[in-house]
Amino acid sequence: MKTIVHDATEVVTYADHSRIDTVADASVVIEDGTVLAVGPADEVRREHPTENADETIDASGQAVVPGIVDPHTHAVFAGERSDEFEAKLRGKSYNEILEEGGGILRTVRATREADSEMLVENLLNQLDVMLAHGTTTVEVKSGYGLDIETEMKMLEAIESADERHPVDLVSTFLGAHAVPEEDDTESYVKQVIDQQIPAVAEAGVAEFCDVFCEEGIFDVEQSRRILDAGRSAGLKPKVHAEELSHLGGTQLAADVGATSADHLLHSTLDDVKAMNKAGVSPVLLPGTAFGLGADYADAGMFIDAGAPVALATDFNPNCYSQSMPFAMSLACVEMGMTPAQALGAATRNAALAIDRDDGTGTLEPGSPGDLAVLSGPSYVYLSYQFGVNPVDCVVKNGRVYGS
Amino acid sequence: MKTIVHDATEVVTYADHSRIDTVADASVVIEDGTVLAVGPADEVRREHPTENADETIDASGQAVVPGIVDPHTHAVFAGERSDEFEAKLRGKSYNEILEEGGGILRTVRATREADSEMLVENLLNQLDVMLAHGTTTVEVKSGYGLDIETEMKMLEAIESADERHPVDLVSTFLGAHAVPEEDDTESYVKQVIDQQIPAVAEAGVAEFCDVFCEEGIFDVEQSRRILDAGRSAGLKPKVHAEELSHLGGTQLAADVGATSADHLLHSTLDDVKAMNKAGVSPVLLPGTAFGLGADYADAGMFIDAGAPVALATDFNPNCYSQSMPFAMSLACVEMGMTPAQALGAATRNAALAIDRDDGTGTLEPGSPGDLAVLSGPSYVYLSYQFGVNPVDCVVKNGRVYGS
Ligand SMILES: [Zn+2]
Ligand SMILES: [Zn+2]
Repeated sequence: MKTIVHDATEVVTYADHSRIDTVADASVVIEDGTVLAVGPADEVRREHPTENADETIDASGQAVVPGIVDPHTHAVFAGERSDEFEAKLRGKSYNEILEEGGGILRTVRATREADSEMLVENLLNQLDVMLAHGTTTVEVKSGYGLDIETEMKMLEAIESADERHPVDLVSTFLGAHAVPEEDDTESYVKQVIDQQIPAVAEAGVAEFCDVFCEEGIFDVEQSRRILDAGRSAGLKPKVHAEELSHLGGTQLAADVGATSADHLLHSTLDDVKAMNKAGVSPVLLPGTAFGLGADYADAGMFIDAGAPVALATDFNPNCYSQSMPFAMSLACVEMGMTPAQALGAATRNAALAIDRDDGTGTLEPGSPGDLAVLSGPSYVYLSYQFGVNPVDCVVKNGRVYGS
Repeated sequence: MKTIVHDATEVVTYADHSRIDTVADASVVIEDGTVLAVGPADEVRREHPTENADETIDASGQAVVPGIVDPHTHAVFAGERSDEFEAKLRGKSYNEILEEGGGILRTVRATREADSEMLVENLLNQLDVMLAHGTTTVEVKSGYGLDIETEMKMLEAIESADERHPVDLVSTFLGAHAVPEEDDTESYVKQVIDQQIPAVAEAGVAEFCDVFCEEGIFDVEQSRRILDAGRSAGLKPKVHAEELSHLGGTQLAADVGATSADHLLHSTLDDVKAMNKAGVSPVLLPGTAFGLGADYADAGMFIDAGAPVALATDFNPNCYSQSMPFAMSLACVEMGMTPAQALGAATRNAALAIDRDDGTGTLEPGSPGDLAVLSGPSYVYLSYQFGVNPVDCVVKNGRVYGS
């Protein structure tokens, strides 16, 4: 099966935090799910006439970028919490919302009650929205179960959605997302280590083990025990670190050789150096700051230090945006990144943050056949057109979706 | 022709800055372009069985809101300026961009060169995006001509697009948007008053006359002369006021009885009181602040004073967002408005800001048959789901678009 996207105004073949490669007036040929050729349209046409393609996209006046990677989401859950967004804006405090049964534990209750098929259906709907916004690979975490049955149900829903949906899913076990109502912290940490991790590893339903390392949730030592147990069972570490305070989650991530540390609002330059040395990818989540009216991470500090900054949506009921282009707009407008850096952070660097060093997030010969065709003539539209989807159509694994 | 939207989770029939009326489990009947009935689904079904409708929408699990009104856009222009967004983020100053031929006068050059049909096509494309985001009525300004031929060409393009597109257009003459390169301010003011306004009025291609009253552009006296001349010719006044400094544009708006004053970042409480007394609608433009990384207007001051605050996109090459839901998200997150106030500001109050007191922006019997069906079960999704279009489909004048 051969797909040709031809005569794009520009094709971005590679972008990261310090570099962007583009080809003007260019075409891309994908064969059997892999990029076969990319280059000036005239040259490509000689070698690969469009008549021989199974599918063609005329991308005249449009830019083409690598398929976008979203390396941090909580996209599988049941129930909805839009009323809490309104309550907060009417002046209700977070604690009042918690006392009335709101917040994360409300999503936990709804997710425990949900049957598997409903969880899968909800996730498939979210993946449709993500794909339409250019995302072709997405990490999804469990963590609204907080008991072994529901955590497994969530991870199985991710596996099932991965089989049924064109978007590629990467699965992360986040049993240590919060402490459930019925348990205390230390006893729950033991449950995660002694029961949940072995069950998840045995079933082979997760690639990563993540933990919410934060004051009042899991401290550094508890987090370390969980990540060590995960790693022993074959789950690569990830950390929710330094979101609300400087607790030491970044140093922990460096110590345990985590694939990524995420949030990082309170990280210091020493933290960044430790991450760089240990090869930990920093994942910044500007949508979370936007949704909560909170502060943004200091992207400049990471980029100046040469860190491979990645962006993610953090999509969850408290941050209800599935759009990576919107995260890129926020990265530019609120965190001072350039559109090129934001694109790098949403493609190549985002792939590194989920340990995909196989060409995912790039558009060079041999890369996966994943790309997004934009409505505008330049990749800059991804961040320039804010609040509106700048993606016209998407190719995933050589197949065309949308438009 | 009869269209029935049935079994919505909730229907918002009316919202403004201080009030929102909703009906739960409700249906809407539109006949010949006008709302005939709205109420509980069971009651509506008895009177108006869906079998008798020409078109039906099953809105189960979805909220329905009045068609959205965008009362301030610069949606007709040629050329594109995404590279300036990038240049600014790479550290280029606004003055450097101007010196290199960028900024508004670049759009003026491109628009002068564009042929009429191309201008109309561009505008129709923007209207498609707006309609998909729930906007059923939109104000569009001229102001990238700055000469009589191009200003007329723009206004005629608006008229032509209004005839060809389902969205209703409201046309505003903004010859006094800037001073053209070839002229000085005082001489250009005379041209606007002596030549442009008479030509526009004679052709009957605009309903409003607007002016950019700002330090270094048009001062209060020049703005007053332009608005007076416009009013004498039958064009109702509007003012771009107090965006960059407190120059007196709001008081001017009150003095001349303007329909609206827009931007208002530097307005004082006295200004608000003067506007209220004179019946001038305040139009706030949070997308402009977002796009420029600038400050937001003080929505709370207007709302506390009982002013009928409206929101608009200000869509233009410097603020590239066609989405009113995104303006509503910003109004909540950045300006502290509630989702209900934001919806009122985007419907009933936005209609008042373009002098449409005929039920536009409401969904009661007798209102225009314009509504938006959301993807979520509550109107809160309009602001809660940020950076992603929360509108599933739209009914304009009784006809269904999208989905
Ligand atoms: Zn998270
Ligand atoms: Zn304007």
